[in-house]
Amino acid sequence: MSLLAVGSIAFDDLETPFGRREKVLGGSATYFSLSASRFHPVRLVAVVGDDFGPDQQVVFAGRAVDLQGLERKPGKCFHWKGVYGYDLNEAQTLETHLNVFAHFQPVIPDPFRQSPYLFLGNIDPVLQLEVLKQMGTPPRWVALDTMNYWIRGSRGALEAVLHRVDILLMNESETREFTGEHNLIKAYRRVQAIGPQILVVKRGEYGVCLLTPEGIFATPAFPLEDVYDPTGAGDTFAGGFLGFLASVGRTDIPALKKAALAGSVMASFTVERFGTERLENITEQDLRRRMKGFSDMIRVDEL
Amino acid sequence: MSLLAVGSIAFDDLETPFGRREKVLGGSATYFSLSASRFHPVRLVAVVGDDFGPDQQVVFAGRAVDLQGLERKPGKCFHWKGVYGYDLNEAQTLETHLNVFAHFQPVIPDPFRQSPYLFLGNIDPVLQLEVLKQMGTPPRWVALDTMNYWIRGSRGALEAVLHRVDILLMNESETREFTGEHNLIKAYRRVQAIGPQILVVKRGEYGVCLLTPEGIFATPAFPLEDVYDPTGAGDTFAGGFLGFLASVGRTDIPALKKAALAGSVMASFTVERFGTERLENITEQDLRRRMKGFSDMIRVDEL
Repeated sequence: MSLLAVGSIAFDDLETPFGRREKVLGGSATYFSLSASRFHPVRLVAVVGDDFGPDQQVVFAGRAVDLQGLERKPGKCFHWKGVYGYDLNEAQTLETHLNVFAHFQPVIPDPFRQSPYLFLGNIDPVLQLEVLKQMGTPPRWVALDTMNYWIRGSRGALEAVLHRVDILLMNESETREFTGEHNLIKAYRRVQAIGPQILVVKRGEYGVCLLTPEGIFATPAFPLEDVYDPTGAGDTFAGGFLGFLASVGRTDIPALKKAALAGSVMASFTVERFGTERLENITEQDLRRRMKGFSDMIRVDEL
Repeated sequence: MSLLAVGSIAFDDLETPFGRREKVLGGSATYFSLSASRFHPVRLVAVVGDDFGPDQQVVFAGRAVDLQGLERKPGKCFHWKGVYGYDLNEAQTLETHLNVFAHFQPVIPDPFRQSPYLFLGNIDPVLQLEVLKQMGTPPRWVALDTMNYWIRGSRGALEAVLHRVDILLMNESETREFTGEHNLIKAYRRVQAIGPQILVVKRGEYGVCLLTPEGIFATPAFPLEDVYDPTGAGDTFAGGFLGFLASVGRTDIPALKKAALAGSVMASFTVERFGTERLENITEQDLRRRMKGFSDMIRVDEL
């Protein structure tokens, strides 16, 4: 049993009102796999350049992350530079260098083609479709993340891949843009008509809203006093959420709710430090404690 | 046992993308008392003009709302005209006519001065302080709502009244403006230092966040497919929240959590129609069903 994840590995330059970091390991696949592997074994497919060395490789060591699908190309890793304002809600992108990522053609290693769970991270929907075609037995479920760039520029390809997707993850503003509906319940009906029966709307500091045929679930984010860097929060959430779902082998609403807590808790760790600093060092006890704290917070008892 | 509420009664002209209404009954005290009286008897103190007639009075008839403190003055009621954009998040005020409200000097009728629970609605903090001085035995708790207008223009008076307030309700942006802190936990510490030990941050479609000495509780809003008019949602929330708290006579965290659900559910009815249309016609069964639906939605069970 494994969760196959395809996405990007990058070096990021980050600046927030609380500090700055240069050339830290990032990218959607990095945050996703560090988070998901806390719950379920992950098989990673991504491309890196010559600058991805032992210092980066060690971040994945000793975790349930299979790097067999890591393709090494001459050149440099994807590089992103962003700055956040005081409200930490949205990054302003200062630089994007695709580097080796520009010609990424994901090749799924043979042993990975039977993976029961598949996460198509935020890459060109044409490539997401290519990955789907390489799968052997159809996965039990396919989850997909995307962004406004593809919604605006590759809508046809995006809809084509969404026909075969079960779980769609999107930011709230992207959900509204993609569906043309402000109201999330109306937006969900449009998504359902295209394919995905489970819509996960990521609302940043306001948490997430899950829409499913069985009903709706919304949960706030775990409240934190110190948020230093929101980079990777959405990918960390996706990792915890999908890793948990894979671990229980269910997608009914009780499982989805628990998975949303797992994802939210993992994301709350990520934003407490820069890059993957905190995510790399979560102990079992940290995780158990915060899961319990979060459950207690949102639980309403009879009086 | 009663909850004394001081606030405004108004006529509103409302326009949203889904329709318009003219001269509908509104004002913070109207929404508050219609909502709170579902849970606990309310004593209302407000001022109205000659245009408040039997058609308006009947809205309060047959409810646990004591109108002994309704002062009638020559002239017209407070009048507000506002328009909402497609996202329904914030109204643009087109007209405000204070009319009889301009010289409102709340006088608490003698039998009301022993009320155990007091809600100071969003009026001039100088008047809120006057009301407090008229109380006989100090109330068990005092709750206060305010807005950016008073935060900016009457900060001294506002802080003076807050010294004697237990529960502060504010919109999220107002909380940040008032405290100078973006982070709600940091904002809460500032509020605590001034007086109120319970801070209720209203986040519109994202629900509420309660901060207390015992811990934090955040809950999303009840998800609705059709939202027609958000006018009065915050006051309706305050009514359900404080009416429920008064009804149980407790302010510990389990009571506060349940109260937040009650307030959220009441607010969800208000926004489904224009003005008080829906709020006036909630049956016991409507209320019970939606309370259960909301509890079920936010509940996370063990797998």
